[in-house]
Amino acid sequence: MTNARTSDISEFDRDTEFPPGRDGVHPVTISPRWNALGGSPNGGYSLALALRGLAHDMRSHGFVDPLVVSAFYLRRTTPGPAEVRTEVARVGGRTATGTARLLRDGDEVVRLTATFGDLARMQGRSAVFGKPPPLPSPDACVDLTGARRIPGVTLVDRMEYRAPALPGWVRGAPSGDPSAAFWMRFRDGRAPDTIALPALVDAAPPAVLEIGEPGSSTIELTVHVRARPAPGWLACRVTTRYVIDGLHEEDFEVWDAEGRPVAQARQLALLAPTRAPA
Amino acid sequence: MTNARTSDISEFDRDTEFPPGRDGVHPVTISPRWNALGGSPNGGYSLALALRGLAHDMRSHGFVDPLVVSAFYLRRTTPGPAEVRTEVARVGGRTATGTARLLRDGDEVVRLTATFGDLARMQGRSAVFGKPPPLPSPDACVDLTGARRIPGVTLVDRMEYRAPALPGWVRGAPSGDPSAAFWMRFRDGRAPDTIALPALVDAAPPAVLEIGEPGSSTIELTVHVRARPAPGWLACRVTTRYVIDGLHEEDFEVWDAEGRPVAQARQLALLAPTRAPA
Repeated sequence: MTNARTSDISEFDRDTEFPPGRDGVHPVTISPRWNALGGSPNGGYSLALALRGLAHDMRSHGFVDPLVVSAFYLRRTTPGPAEVRTEVARVGGRTATGTARLLRDGDEVVRLTATFGDLARMQGRSAVFGKPPPLPSPDACVDLTGARRIPGVTLVDRMEYRAPALPGWVRGAPSGDPSAAFWMRFRDGRAPDTIALPALVDAAPPAVLEIGEPGSSTIELTVHVRARPAPGWLACRVTTRYVIDGLHEEDFEVWDAEGRPVAQARQLALLAPTRAPA
Repeated sequence: MTNARTSDISEFDRDTEFPPGRDGVHPVTISPRWNALGGSPNGGYSLALALRGLAHDMRSHGFVDPLVVSAFYLRRTTPGPAEVRTEVARVGGRTATGTARLLRDGDEVVRLTATFGDLARMQGRSAVFGKPPPLPSPDACVDLTGARRIPGVTLVDRMEYRAPALPGWVRGAPSGDPSAAFWMRFRDGRAPDTIALPALVDAAPPAVLEIGEPGSSTIELTVHVRARPAPGWLACRVTTRYVIDGLHEEDFEVWDAEGRPVAQARQLALLAPTRAPA
């Protein structure tokens, strides 16, 4: 495993940034370093590739933060050369919206639409009714990273997780309660930001592992980015409440190291078949 | 007020169905009968117009139920002639995904992407951890419809709401708790279905009225349609937990008359200015 602490560019930036293409067509590479189960890139990572292309277009209009991103996952894919195609739908005074598509071998893999803004310029009332998960400090937590290594799941080499105790599913005794709370950060110490948050909400084990399911595959993921996160660990809470005919939602909340809510996400996903597809 | 009980077609269907156009271009009319504050059509209604166009394309592939819909609201609009343009992105074995855009005077008003499937054919595990809101029967509730009529808000003539008591904001005494539970149905008795549900989750007063806000405008709305609803009243729960710098999320859950969860929605919205825009 390489450690990017020693280089100027983080692993996430190296694997998601690309020189801008022309006319909204950007050649990219899907890295094999962010793979989830089955050798497919993690959904958060492929979202980040598409979002980076759109962020480039939005930056030229003065909008640097994605406020809301909705990504539809059309096909499983594999690492390799790919392409991001972007289109700006509307540029307004406070926000701008556009679509980005990730294509591999000419097939569309991810279609996302996002509204960008500038969180530093947002003004208005604040009233927070939710609370961060009650977690001991990361130093007082168990390091979950690699607690259960699965061959080929390279995502775990990029991310670090801490929780009060080993999850039931890791110990072979799922709790029956599809929820979890934990700390998360990039292993190489890269600070979270509003571009990384939409990827991070899909970079942790799904809550349905605690009801004995082997995994799930995302159909659609919506992320609200609510604030620019402070550097440091992110406190996360993940919950599933409705599993119906093999489909389930998963809610994901993220709080920064200063205890502020920074992201809220929900996905609709399909329970994986018992054996991970090749 | 017309009452469609006497005609063969419901108000919702009359105002959202249109003869299919050609090559994904469908001429439609934005009806003035579903207006929210400020003379603009309700966001759920404009979503329904775009969704109907896509549903037409999807039906020809055998997919009749939207499983997940994400709609971005690009501009305020007004009733009048409009156009829905659709594009199917991928047709798979179990699901199909496409995009629909609602245009008025050539300007894009709503861009939505949706994955369709067939809920009657979905198979797999079910496990429900949430509960419907604890509501007395509709007959034992207060009729909220028209409790506070706002000139021009024609949506209230189409919908019927019942709750255990008049909300605080109606009585001029917002509770300070941005949440509510109530029954909802089409006034003309049209049964809910999986095409109407994505419109209905945006057809009730926003939860932020209970913290003294005059209203809010949707940036993006995601809806998960989880089951085909039984005929009758829908039990709804609406909650906002994070208002940050004028932006807020709103969660909306819908249970059918038989107590089954049928839809889950979340939107990101902007608190309205003190005076409704003209």
